[in-house]
Amino acid sequence: MKREKGQLIVLSGPSGVGKSTVIAELLSQRNHIYFSVSYTTRQPRVGEQNGVNYNFVDRTEFERMISAGELLEYAEYVDNYYGTSLKAIQEQLDAGVDVLLDIEVQGAAKVRSRCPGALFIFIIPPSFEELSRRLHRRNTDSEDVIAGRLEKARGEFREIPNYDYLVINDKVSGAVAEIEAILTAAECRVENRKSILTQFA
Amino acid sequence: MKREKGQLIVLSGPSGVGKSTVIAELLSQRNHIYFSVSYTTRQPRVGEQNGVNYNFVDRTEFERMISAGELLEYAEYVDNYYGTSLKAIQEQLDAGVDVLLDIEVQGAAKVRSRCPGALFIFIIPPSFEELSRRLHRRNTDSEDVIAGRLEKARGEFREIPNYDYLVINDKVSGAVAEIEAILTAAECRVENRKSILTQFA
Repeated sequence: MKREKGQLIVLSGPSGVGKSTVIAELLSQRNHIYFSVSYTTRQPRVGEQNGVNYNFVDRTEFERMISAGELLEYAEYVDNYYGTSLKAIQEQLDAGVDVLLDIEVQGAAKVRSRCPGALFIFIIPPSFEELSRRLHRRNTDSEDVIAGRLEKARGEFREIPNYDYLVINDKVSGAVAEIEAILTAAECRVENRKSILTQFA
Repeated sequence: MKREKGQLIVLSGPSGVGKSTVIAELLSQRNHIYFSVSYTTRQPRVGEQNGVNYNFVDRTEFERMISAGELLEYAEYVDNYYGTSLKAIQEQLDAGVDVLLDIEVQGAAKVRSRCPGALFIFIIPPSFEELSRRLHRRNTDSEDVIAGRLEKARGEFREIPNYDYLVINDKVSGAVAEIEAILTAAECRVENRKSILTQFA
């Protein structure tokens, strides 16, 4: 059954928790869901594709988007901007498509104040030790960088009480099934099925 | 994963919507869920079993339960009492088992005021005409009784805005899948997974 309007879903979680794998699996399994690609001014890394990993723009364009109010949220890290375009999201939601945002806790806080009806999901690893193991297994970062990511994760975990749902990424299939249940339950909310009710009035 | 506490679920819906079939299917598919059998003072109908369809008690015993505060909610219809025992429910919830109540909108309103954390699910047919067809197909009621049930259904539909979720029983398997998603999503709520968070603090 078709919903009147799509659901905005904010997904956060520490670096190394396996968010991208979970998102890729979710997108492959579910219809009517759109992943919002962020905008950034940083340089593409090897293998990153414009429009897939990020929309890569220059500072002038990013600052134009800020001034024009085109961003739902944005932040600056290490001299680079990262942000979410409002326009693409709005079009999808209006068309009844769910929109998934993968953003950090600060960006999520901004979305929460602007879109109180959004769903906020935080993904955690089964344990802190497992997060450390996963970061080591990626084999892309030095010990210092890993230590920094773990420290950052501790700060992010403190934001969990501001989220609606907590999903544990022990196995990817389990985490995806839980997110699917959360999205299906959201579709069943009375306020999302008001149009059905008119015929019973 | 084990939750700290079970979830109380209130299911309402008009006579003829197919609630009992949905509930039977849900109970057969899902673990850690307990169906709370109501207490009544009315006489068992042919085929009804004590402890399965209802717990059949006499008026003296029912009134003792009322005085002793043993009922979560109760109502009197056509000179018979119907009610939900608090004790059995509490034991299951404390053991981490979900408890399903099949009660009418008035009983649901009482549970809502006493248990604001409960999930309230209303089951509707795909259309009003289909409800009428299903009541005729049961072939158990006279035209007058069916007309009365349909009239009562209209009143019940007006209570839907007080429920959290609206499930359409078009196919039983679809309705069961939606209720399963609602229950799984409830398990994922941050407030139901607080114990997991302690290790990340």
